[in-house]
Amino acid sequence: MEQTALDKSLTYASTNWEQFMDDFKNLLRIPSVSTDPAYKDDVRRTAEWIRNEMVHIGLHNCQLLESGGHPAVYGEWLDAGSDQPTILIYAHYDTQPIDPLELWITPPFEPSVRDGYIYARGAIDDKAGVHIHLKAVESILMSTGKLPANIKFFFEGEEESSSSNIIPLIRQHKDLLDADLLVISDGGGVDDQPFIITSVRGITSGEVKVRGPKIDLHSGSYGGVVNNPAHVVAKIVAAVHGPDGRIQVPGFYDNVQRLTPTELESLADEEEVEIKIARDETGLEEFWGVEGYSFIERQTALPTFDVNGLYSGYQGIGNKTIIPSEAGFKASMRLAAGQEPDDIAEKFTRFVRKFECPGIQIEINTQSDGRAVQFLFDGPVMDAIQNIYQITYGKRALLCRQGGSVPVMSTMQDELKIPMINLGFGNGKNGHAPNECASLKYLRLDLETAIRVYYAYSESVRPKE
Amino acid sequence: MEQTALDKSLTYASTNWEQFMDDFKNLLRIPSVSTDPAYKDDVRRTAEWIRNEMVHIGLHNCQLLESGGHPAVYGEWLDAGSDQPTILIYAHYDTQPIDPLELWITPPFEPSVRDGYIYARGAIDDKAGVHIHLKAVESILMSTGKLPANIKFFFEGEEESSSSNIIPLIRQHKDLLDADLLVISDGGGVDDQPFIITSVRGITSGEVKVRGPKIDLHSGSYGGVVNNPAHVVAKIVAAVHGPDGRIQVPGFYDNVQRLTPTELESLADEEEVEIKIARDETGLEEFWGVEGYSFIERQTALPTFDVNGLYSGYQGIGNKTIIPSEAGFKASMRLAAGQEPDDIAEKFTRFVRKFECPGIQIEINTQSDGRAVQFLFDGPVMDAIQNIYQITYGKRALLCRQGGSVPVMSTMQDELKIPMINLGFGNGKNGHAPNECASLKYLRLDLETAIRVYYAYSESVRPKE
Repeated sequence: MEQTALDKSLTYASTNWEQFMDDFKNLLRIPSVSTDPAYKDDVRRTAEWIRNEMVHIGLHNCQLLESGGHPAVYGEWLDAGSDQPTILIYAHYDTQPIDPLELWITPPFEPSVRDGYIYARGAIDDKAGVHIHLKAVESILMSTGKLPANIKFFFEGEEESSSSNIIPLIRQHKDLLDADLLVISDGGGVDDQPFIITSVRGITSGEVKVRGPKIDLHSGSYGGVVNNPAHVVAKIVAAVHGPDGRIQVPGFYDNVQRLTPTELESLADEEEVEIKIARDETGLEEFWGVEGYSFIERQTALPTFDVNGLYSGYQGIGNKTIIPSEAGFKASMRLAAGQEPDDIAEKFTRFVRKFECPGIQIEINTQSDGRAVQFLFDGPVMDAIQNIYQITYGKRALLCRQGGSVPVMSTMQDELKIPMINLGFGNGKNGHAPNECASLKYLRLDLETAIRVYYAYSESVRPKE
Repeated sequence: MEQTALDKSLTYASTNWEQFMDDFKNLLRIPSVSTDPAYKDDVRRTAEWIRNEMVHIGLHNCQLLESGGHPAVYGEWLDAGSDQPTILIYAHYDTQPIDPLELWITPPFEPSVRDGYIYARGAIDDKAGVHIHLKAVESILMSTGKLPANIKFFFEGEEESSSSNIIPLIRQHKDLLDADLLVISDGGGVDDQPFIITSVRGITSGEVKVRGPKIDLHSGSYGGVVNNPAHVVAKIVAAVHGPDGRIQVPGFYDNVQRLTPTELESLADEEEVEIKIARDETGLEEFWGVEGYSFIERQTALPTFDVNGLYSGYQGIGNKTIIPSEAGFKASMRLAAGQEPDDIAEKFTRFVRKFECPGIQIEINTQSDGRAVQFLFDGPVMDAIQNIYQITYGKRALLCRQGGSVPVMSTMQDELKIPMINLGFGNGKNGHAPNECASLKYLRLDLETAIRVYYAYSESVRPKE
């Protein structure tokens, strides 16, 4: 029986696995810590390494996209023809910082294999994402001479710092990045369970400063006659949540999209697992939140308000009996699908303004960092992907909502206006921590998964008109 | 005409004024911040400086009284004889902390003279009290060889922290400190108007720490399910005052002694002056407080609750999207006559305990620092003193209630059981704040006042039997 293109690709991947791992180690050796200016040249060196790799595996138009900060790397293969769909792949090649360095068993940029894991900074977050996709394309192109769909790669280098330069870059290159489907690969599964993230929340942040007397006053001399800014800050923060845990900012829940019964049902399966993880990570036995909603729904689908910092007056050891002249707080609001960050910023501002009173001035600054993002979670593409996980991992991926926010994703959603799926590769431990590592076994399964996804996608969708 | 002893003393004071100011600067240079352990050695160095000064001016039995914390300084001159009355003088040589340091025009421990004021931390509160009495005694002793009454000095070093060690010290040295009259000099007048304080409020302080998750959490991952300690702190503080400004701690106002109609009437005269001063010192146009009471009554006779400091999470520039693991506040409660500090501490603790909830631990520390105190405000000694102010300042001192608290005064009241007057020296601005300063003009008038008071007292009272 003649080998199919898929079989040839998988055989190539299997035959070349040792070489792929050597290449992965070379990528892991370049220290691409984006937040620390000391690594600026190394970050660029990483981008150039990836561009060379793209050329080597047969991609076209390979280039660094300059952003003013760290460059993004672009490469494409469009020879499938304009009647075939185009997939845009996003991952990031920059990494978190390495401190505390003394906790690493082996140096963070000297990849070391132990007990089936490869240890290095970036091993799962997110050089695995870059590497798996490059090797999937190499396996298909080298063994069959063509890809089943058009492919564009967009690997950025600022995800672990601010993405502040990458957002205008996406706007600038909207046409170059146009595609039928965006696949985001950043972060993988846990143990033998693959995950597919189906949403992230949006975010609006704010800082409120309350000013009273022109200087700190003696609390004996002025206690009883001066409105204390710390009390006003407390009143504002205390008023945000009602006794049922709901946020009292008028109109805050307008437009919040409730989950569908299907989503609610799928969340129910995760509930126990997530509570167990939360107990472990927080040290808490009991949790909190809006009455009438499940733990996961509160954690990932409902909007939130959290004070991140609170300050006023004397904070040192002992007492200083003053009425502070100033007090303030910083807060982050995580937004549900449907909420507009600017609208929430305005509503929050109006809410705080109501606390203005004689002898008190209130300054409010807000920042709207991105809407909630909704990824594909059903339909033919997702069915195909779930079938693939059934083949590679022996089980379906867990669809999960994520409570955090990724501003660059919301920009991509707004600018590119194409369906997105979040397909995480790189299953391991200690992301953002010392001794980050990826499982060799699951890297290999992820490579097979990626190859199968390229083929399955081209079969499951209609070409763009 | 032969010079009287009083004349000789005043001439000495006048002749040596420049030297006195140099000595004052030396005292101001030693940073005696009692609440911060970093200054421990400096506080002791200040005490030793004062003991040496006492020896230098001819006092006897000069010594540091060890308290386990910062020492007190004692010195006496009892050669007037046992048929003459003994005055015990109290002041404190420690100071408030100096932050925010960036608001000081000149460094807090480098005394600087500008526009008739001497700027330094402690210039009015209360190194002026220490200095004026030392120089008054020096002027009399050096020019006449004797004092008109027996004198004991007791200068403490913990007034701005807790006086927690000084209180047992007073109990321990009751006999050494025995006298016919206690003169407390801590804080002076404003502009050209001398004040005599006739009462001070008591004080109970507290610090509340609220702990939630074992570490700071990502506000995206845990927003909506973890009870945020900063929110709990806000709820506690916000609940303290009702909309009418009254303190909601159950039983807080039990036993509060209302002012007599006579006192209320005398306060009414001051009302306008005090509001003017308050506008000037606070920069505020509008004030705040319990409905239905006058400004001065709220400022001096009603109990209060003020947050002195508030803290949680990230306070730096920009955002850090965390749920903080901890939050807290420091508060001072000023007490009216009739309130027991321990009773208030208990009631406050019970009030805070009600905010305990799942996932939150609350730690409450309180400190009962003293009852409200009543000083002499009429009788022959006060008449004599008012006559002196008529000579030195050209007007009588304003008798006034004070909103502040001096824990040690309440102990002295309880332990020594002798009449007390509160004769404030050091007229200036910004006590407890950046750019504390004392008026040179009024320092000089206060020195003359002190010298005259020593003479007048010995004439106005009968010796102790």
